[in-house]
Amino acid sequence: MASLRAAARLRPAVTRITKSSPRFYGAAAAVKSSPSSGEQPFFPDEPAGPTVKTAIPGPQSKKAIEDLHKVFDTRSLNMLANYEKSYGNYIADPDGNVLLDVYAQIASIPVGYNNPSLHKVALSEKMASALINRPALGNFPSHDWADVLRSGILKVAPKGLDQVFTAMAGSDANETAYKAAFMWRRQQERGGAHVEFTEEDMASSMLNQAPGAPQLSILSFKTAFHGRLFGSLSTTRSKPIHKLDIPAFDWPQATFPLLKYPLEDYVEENARIEAEALADVERIITTHHLPPCAVVIEPIQSEGGDNHASPAFFRGLRALTKKHNVLMIVDEVQTGVGATGKFWAHEHWNLETPPDMVTFSKKAQTAGYYFGNPEMRPNKPYRQFNTWMGDPARALLFRAIIEEIERLDLVSNTAKVGEYLYGGIEQLAKQYPGEFMNLRGKGQGTFIAFDSPRRDEFLKKAKSVGVNIGGSGERAVRLRPMLIFQRHHADMLLEALEKIVKS
Amino acid sequence: MASLRAAARLRPAVTRITKSSPRFYGAAAAVKSSPSSGEQPFFPDEPAGPTVKTAIPGPQSKKAIEDLHKVFDTRSLNMLANYEKSYGNYIADPDGNVLLDVYAQIASIPVGYNNPSLHKVALSEKMASALINRPALGNFPSHDWADVLRSGILKVAPKGLDQVFTAMAGSDANETAYKAAFMWRRQQERGGAHVEFTEEDMASSMLNQAPGAPQLSILSFKTAFHGRLFGSLSTTRSKPIHKLDIPAFDWPQATFPLLKYPLEDYVEENARIEAEALADVERIITTHHLPPCAVVIEPIQSEGGDNHASPAFFRGLRALTKKHNVLMIVDEVQTGVGATGKFWAHEHWNLETPPDMVTFSKKAQTAGYYFGNPEMRPNKPYRQFNTWMGDPARALLFRAIIEEIERLDLVSNTAKVGEYLYGGIEQLAKQYPGEFMNLRGKGQGTFIAFDSPRRDEFLKKAKSVGVNIGGSGERAVRLRPMLIFQRHHADMLLEALEKIVKS
Repeated sequence: MASLRAAARLRPAVTRITKSSPRFYGAAAAVKSSPSSGEQPFFPDEPAGPTVKTAIPGPQSKKAIEDLHKVFDTRSLNMLANYEKSYGNYIADPDGNVLLDVYAQIASIPVGYNNPSLHKVALSEKMASALINRPALGNFPSHDWADVLRSGILKVAPKGLDQVFTAMAGSDANETAYKAAFMWRRQQERGGAHVEFTEEDMASSMLNQAPGAPQLSILSFKTAFHGRLFGSLSTTRSKPIHKLDIPAFDWPQATFPLLKYPLEDYVEENARIEAEALADVERIITTHHLPPCAVVIEPIQSEGGDNHASPAFFRGLRALTKKHNVLMIVDEVQTGVGATGKFWAHEHWNLETPPDMVTFSKKAQTAGYYFGNPEMRPNKPYRQFNTWMGDPARALLFRAIIEEIERLDLVSNTAKVGEYLYGGIEQLAKQYPGEFMNLRGKGQGTFIAFDSPRRDEFLKKAKSVGVNIGGSGERAVRLRPMLIFQRHHADMLLEALEKIVKS
Repeated sequence: MASLRAAARLRPAVTRITKSSPRFYGAAAAVKSSPSSGEQPFFPDEPAGPTVKTAIPGPQSKKAIEDLHKVFDTRSLNMLANYEKSYGNYIADPDGNVLLDVYAQIASIPVGYNNPSLHKVALSEKMASALINRPALGNFPSHDWADVLRSGILKVAPKGLDQVFTAMAGSDANETAYKAAFMWRRQQERGGAHVEFTEEDMASSMLNQAPGAPQLSILSFKTAFHGRLFGSLSTTRSKPIHKLDIPAFDWPQATFPLLKYPLEDYVEENARIEAEALADVERIITTHHLPPCAVVIEPIQSEGGDNHASPAFFRGLRALTKKHNVLMIVDEVQTGVGATGKFWAHEHWNLETPPDMVTFSKKAQTAGYYFGNPEMRPNKPYRQFNTWMGDPARALLFRAIIEEIERLDLVSNTAKVGEYLYGGIEQLAKQYPGEFMNLRGKGQGTFIAFDSPRRDEFLKKAKSVGVNIGGSGERAVRLRPMLIFQRHHADMLLEALEKIVKS
């Protein structure tokens, strides 16, 4: 830790950029000359560090928020932003505050604010056409849609999954995957794709009754989060405030293995916890009154408090789903696109057979689900369909994001910087007992979290020392930096974390 | 009719544009000099008429579709498009075919392909920033979000509704409106916004059980369409193929008044049909085992077959919902933004009090729901929330669409052209008995439909005479031209309709 801290001290972590600076983002020399890492900054013009000029929200922000509230609910507002002045890892506000952003729009900004490569694509004729000639993709796809898919979304498809159904956001990505699962199961029960629906199927479906609207379920896990529309919310089990007063399907939830930390001290106990969780899954699959046709799971439960499980657990889950002819849907909405040091978090598991479906959104800036098995295509057209079925403009943007990730080797960067950052917080945890509890995310890139005894206060204080951080669950501080987060940013973040607990 | 037809005959409705034409869209002289209407074309460079060079799909399209099918389900494909060559009311394909498009991406293109005003906005720095710095709107809205809302989405808010919740597409626009309705009702049952949730509410909600997940419903109508996610699909009653194999809530459906045409011949009978439908609504509201907290209704049932009801019916429905303390959600996803000759179709009804919520998508190129009553804002933050909560890029586009609608007075245009077109089809219906049945949409702009005895064949033939038309329900031909559809386009369409039934 001493060497890390020494390196961080070589320059002030919080630099004030004055109004008289010749360029707003002109103070990068300190970064470039940083001797600690020898790294080249991805954004040479990035600020050298955060600037905190006022309390947040400051007077300008307060005025604007009050005005916004008249037409838009601002009670969940965290910070009013000025995106024109945000750059790279830094988010700006109307009061001239510039924070190191390790929350990144709830884990959704992949390659930095105002990324120049993305900016170029955004201003291209292809993008303009995609924006103003938005097709009903299922009916009138563009002649180059196959090319856009192959050179973008499908280029990064998880191993074994060569098809995609495009959607709009995480919730409908999951719900369309659930729909595919229900159709697959019922098709199987009927005896195959060639078997026609019965009159009873058709008539009862129109009445929202079985067998047309089947008595089946999706199995999810306690403390899971899969979205907030009616089907996805029925699989979400994060917090009451997410679910209260909304009708839900009587779908089951299995125990998620809540591991004890540090992992090395609880090897046997954690193995037992995971075995019990798998037994719970099997019990539900074999006994629930609404048989699950699929299990949906996040590689790391994100909204639910950053809960991890071992690769062995996920392999065990895969084996169970295979054994009982249940589909496995991996929800990579928050974990996907590089943040865990692999492009897809489930690559950490070394599964023998790929998941049946993998859903994505957030850092992809578009959404949908991948699948490999042709049986996931329903037996007739118009069963899985809607007007837009995604957004080609966002598909073009995802392609540009993928190119930027490849050009700068950002998945490797995230793996390496994550390791460095994890080591730093591990040291802090020893230095400040009880302040950084249950540190988790080792070997998972920058997808790191810890529990704080005064979490909400911790997050508030973070802003005052120049960092924008988010929470998850009841007491976790979750780190979700962008993929362009580098060692010198990690140094600044470590210094800030220490300041927060020392103050 | 004679005068209409004569005008249409002044120039060929189907003009072949040869490869040697100096400009692809250069043949507009005929349009400009059209003596029948004296109108100025909105798109002076638009083709003078359709070009049909090959069967559709032609050889180029067939090749590309086969390739696309390897990675994307093309079984619902209607026509492969080339959007770079589409312009105004005309959609082009890879084989050089250019069709007059009166389907417009399932009623979703408002002001023409490659509209120059939209093109300019799409290439602006503001748009680029919105695309590449996509915020989590509920947490980190941009400092100018209030301005974007006020100068765009809210500028066209229905009377009495001054708030908006932004979403991504029609389905989630409806589902978030449903969520607002459930929260409103439960809040009322608890005794107001200040009353806290009980422990039982919270605990049971996490188990998907009542009272936390309440035994309440949304009431919709037979043959309605409100989307295809789990909650919205439970209110959709269009066709079995939309609903089969998907679990559904046991929510009720009321009879929609299926009127008889021509209306003037069935005044009394239709009044009785509507009275019975209202009685059915009241019966369900007062007796259903899952009490409805809201009624959702389309001003014109669109996917379900273009079913209309009278303003008196909707006023009666409003009175019933008021009487029984049930919310009225008007789903203007397909009818909204000008197509019926009013900006919102429900303006035709002269309601005494505005609907509680109005949902929108499609021609708005973004989505969400309007509301006026502050009680539709849940009592706590994070109850109605998701990561993106819409898309500022699409909000900027909607603003540009609104400006274009105002600049060209397109709602009035649509009212006038719709009247002209309706008159033309009325004549055709007399001339060709049994071919244009149950003509509907009088006074509803270009939102016109009729039943065809051989509907699917009719739609296929339309392409061969240069027109792209869509169907709805089992046998309706639905016209959904853009708002820039003019009298000379109507003449071409009328000529094409006649050709189809004559062939």
